[in-house]
Amino acid sequence: MKISVMRERHPSGGRVALTPANVSALKKLGCQIFVETGAGDAASFSNDNYQEAGAEILESRAQLLEKGEIILCVDASREEALADLKACHICIGLMDPLSNCDRFSNLAKRGITTISLELVPRISRAQSMDALSSIATLAGYKAVLMAASHAPRIFPMMMTAAGTLSPSRVFIMGAGVAGLQAAATAKRLGAVVEAYDIRPAAREQILSVGAKPVELDLDTSSAEGQGGYASKQDEDFLKRQREQMSTVLAQQDVVITTAAIPGAKAPILITEEMVKGMKPGAVIVDLAAERGGNCELSKAGETVTAYGVTILGPIDIAASLPNHASQMFGRNVESLLEHLLDEEGRLTLDFEDEILDQTVITHEGEVRATRIRERLTPLIQPQEAIA
Amino acid sequence: MKISVMRERHPSGGRVALTPANVSALKKLGCQIFVETGAGDAASFSNDNYQEAGAEILESRAQLLEKGEIILCVDASREEALADLKACHICIGLMDPLSNCDRFSNLAKRGITTISLELVPRISRAQSMDALSSIATLAGYKAVLMAASHAPRIFPMMMTAAGTLSPSRVFIMGAGVAGLQAAATAKRLGAVVEAYDIRPAAREQILSVGAKPVELDLDTSSAEGQGGYASKQDEDFLKRQREQMSTVLAQQDVVITTAAIPGAKAPILITEEMVKGMKPGAVIVDLAAERGGNCELSKAGETVTAYGVTILGPIDIAASLPNHASQMFGRNVESLLEHLLDEEGRLTLDFEDEILDQTVITHEGEVRATRIRERLTPLIQPQEAIA
Repeated sequence: MKISVMRERHPSGGRVALTPANVSALKKLGCQIFVETGAGDAASFSNDNYQEAGAEILESRAQLLEKGEIILCVDASREEALADLKACHICIGLMDPLSNCDRFSNLAKRGITTISLELVPRISRAQSMDALSSIATLAGYKAVLMAASHAPRIFPMMMTAAGTLSPSRVFIMGAGVAGLQAAATAKRLGAVVEAYDIRPAAREQILSVGAKPVELDLDTSSAEGQGGYASKQDEDFLKRQREQMSTVLAQQDVVITTAAIPGAKAPILITEEMVKGMKPGAVIVDLAAERGGNCELSKAGETVTAYGVTILGPIDIAASLPNHASQMFGRNVESLLEHLLDEEGRLTLDFEDEILDQTVITHEGEVRATRIRERLTPLIQPQEAIA
Repeated sequence: MKISVMRERHPSGGRVALTPANVSALKKLGCQIFVETGAGDAASFSNDNYQEAGAEILESRAQLLEKGEIILCVDASREEALADLKACHICIGLMDPLSNCDRFSNLAKRGITTISLELVPRISRAQSMDALSSIATLAGYKAVLMAASHAPRIFPMMMTAAGTLSPSRVFIMGAGVAGLQAAATAKRLGAVVEAYDIRPAAREQILSVGAKPVELDLDTSSAEGQGGYASKQDEDFLKRQREQMSTVLAQQDVVITTAAIPGAKAPILITEEMVKGMKPGAVIVDLAAERGGNCELSKAGETVTAYGVTILGPIDIAASLPNHASQMFGRNVESLLEHLLDEEGRLTLDFEDEILDQTVITHEGEVRATRIRERLTPLIQPQEAIA
C-alpha cells in the first residue's frame, strides 16, 4: 500500500502520525511511504531522518493526496484535515467521532473510508493501537508539570538550613490512565498524593502508584461502564459526591481532574462554591476542559484565577510533548496497519474482525460504525446512547 | 525593635520578607511588627494571617517608614525599594551588592544602615541565614520543571502498550546548591542525569544525589575558591573545557547551567557552535542568565530558539515559588535578627562578629563592608577583587 503522512496544520499540531522508526517497520511489510516536507520538524524528526528510513519526501499536500492510498494524520477532527480527500482514500487518525458525528454523513457521501483511532475497542489484542491511552498517559504526566510550574510551593518535602518545607498535597480526581499517571508523577516529585475514583476497582490501582485512595460515603455499584471507563451518574449522586468532596478539596495544594465520559459533557466535580473553599494559591488542572470541564470555572485553553485559586484548562496537551507523543501515536498507527495489512502488504477490510468493525466509521458510501450510526438517528437521545 | 515588612513593588515580587510564623517568633523576642497591607497576598499569606500572628497591618508605605526602625524587604537591589528611607533606618534585604556597588556611597551619605543577606559568610553558624542557598535550592528545582515543561519528551522511561519511551538525558553544569537540587529533581522525575563541576570535591556530592559525574581531562586543582564557590578560571582552561564539553552536550535532551561567580560576569560554558551540535528539540535552562549567561545565546528573562534548541534564561526564579521562597527567606531573616537582637529585643551592631562585619554594608555615613569598599576603589580591577 501507498501511505501518505500529512503535516499537521493547526497551531498546536506538533505531532506527526509516523516516526522514522515506524516508516522502517512498514517498509518491511511492503508499504511505500510518502511524508510531507517538514511533517516531523516539531517532533524532532527531520526530512533526512525519514529519507534514511526509506520514505519519500513530497513538497505539497496535493502530491501526497495523489500518491497515497492511505492518508495518515494525527488530528483528523478538523474539517481542513480531510479537505480534498477523494473516494479512493482511506484516512486514519483521531476524529473525535462521538462529539462530532454529523460530519461523517458527508464523508460517507464523498466515498472516503475513515478509520478513527478513538474507536479502537479496549480489548487486550488492541492495546497497542489504543491512542487514547497513549494520549492520556502523556496528559497525566504533563498535567503535574503544569500544576507544579504554577504552584507557589515546591512538591517535595525539603529539610534545609532555613527550616523544613512541608510537601505539597496533590489530589487526583478520576483514576483512569491519565489520573494514575498524574498520581505517579506527583509522587515521583515528592508530593503527598491522594486520588479518588467512583469505580471501586480503582482503589487497588491508586495504591499501586503509591497514592492514597480517598473514600466517600456513596453507592458506587453502577459506576463502571463499558470498556473500563466511568459511566454517567445521576444528578443526586453527583450532588452528594460534591458535598463530601468540598472537605477533601479544602486541604489540597494541587488538584488534577480527569473525569471525562466519551462523547458526553464532562461531569462537574468542582463547583464555584468548592473553589471558594480552597486554599489561596491552590492550583487546579482540569484535563476535561475540552469536554466542558470538571471544574465549573475552567475555560478550555485558558488560565483562570478565581478566589486565589489558579485554574488551568489545557487543550491538546499531548501535542506539547510532540516527540514522545508522536512515538506513541506512530506505534499505535503502525500496530493498526500491521493488523489490517495482509502478507502482501495489501489492505483488506474484514468486518468480522471486532477491531475493524468498531473503528471504520465510513466505507463505500455509508456510515457503518454502530456507535456513530446510533448518534445520527434523531430519535435516540445522546445520553441513552452512552451506556 | 520596631520592624516594618514592605510589600514588594516590582512585577515579579511575589515574595514577602517575613511570614506569619516568623512574626510570631519575633514577637516572642519583644519585637513589634508592622506589615504593609497585601504584602503576603501573592505568597498566600493574608492580612488576617499576619494579624493573628500579632502583626499590625498598615495601609501605606509612608506609615511603615514612619513606624519601623528595621525595614525588611526581599529585593532591595532596586532603587525604589530604598527610596524615602531615613538616616534612622536599618534596611535588611537582598541588595545584589557586588554588581551594584556605587549606590552604597549614596546610601551611606543618607545615613542609612544597610544589611545585605548576600554577604552572609558561608560558615556553619550562619547557614540558617544564607539566603543565596535558599534561592539556589528553589532555582534548581524550578529549572527542572521549566525544562520538562518545554521539552518535547517526557523525563521518565515508560513502558507502555505503544512501546517503550526512552528516558530523557539531563546534564547539569555546575554542582553547587542549585545544580545539585536540579540533579536531584531531574532524577526524581526519572531522567538519566549527569553533572559536571570544575571543583573535584563536587564528585561525591553529584554521586550522592544519584547523578553520574562527567569527568574531563583538565587540571582543576585551583578550581575551588572562597566560601566553596567555584573560582574564576583563565581563558585557556575554559577553551579546553568547551571543546571536551561539546561531545557531552550533543547527547543531551536537557542542559541546566548554574555556573555563576559572585560579582563577576558568568563564564560562557556553551557557545553558539556547541548549541549547533545539540539534538533538535533539546532544552537549555541558563540559571546564570541574569549574570550574562553561561550560554552565549541566552537572554535574561527570555526564551530563545536557535538551531532547534530552546534556551530559557529565567530571572528571579525563586519569586515564581512565592510561598516556599518566602518561608525560606523569612526564616533566613528571622535567624539573622535573632542573632542581632539582644535579650531585651534591642539591636546591637557588634562588628567583632564575623557575620555582622561582612553583611553590614553602610553604617553611620560610611561604606564599611570590605568586599564592597574594595570595589569602590578605582585602582583595583574587579577581577583581582574576586579571588
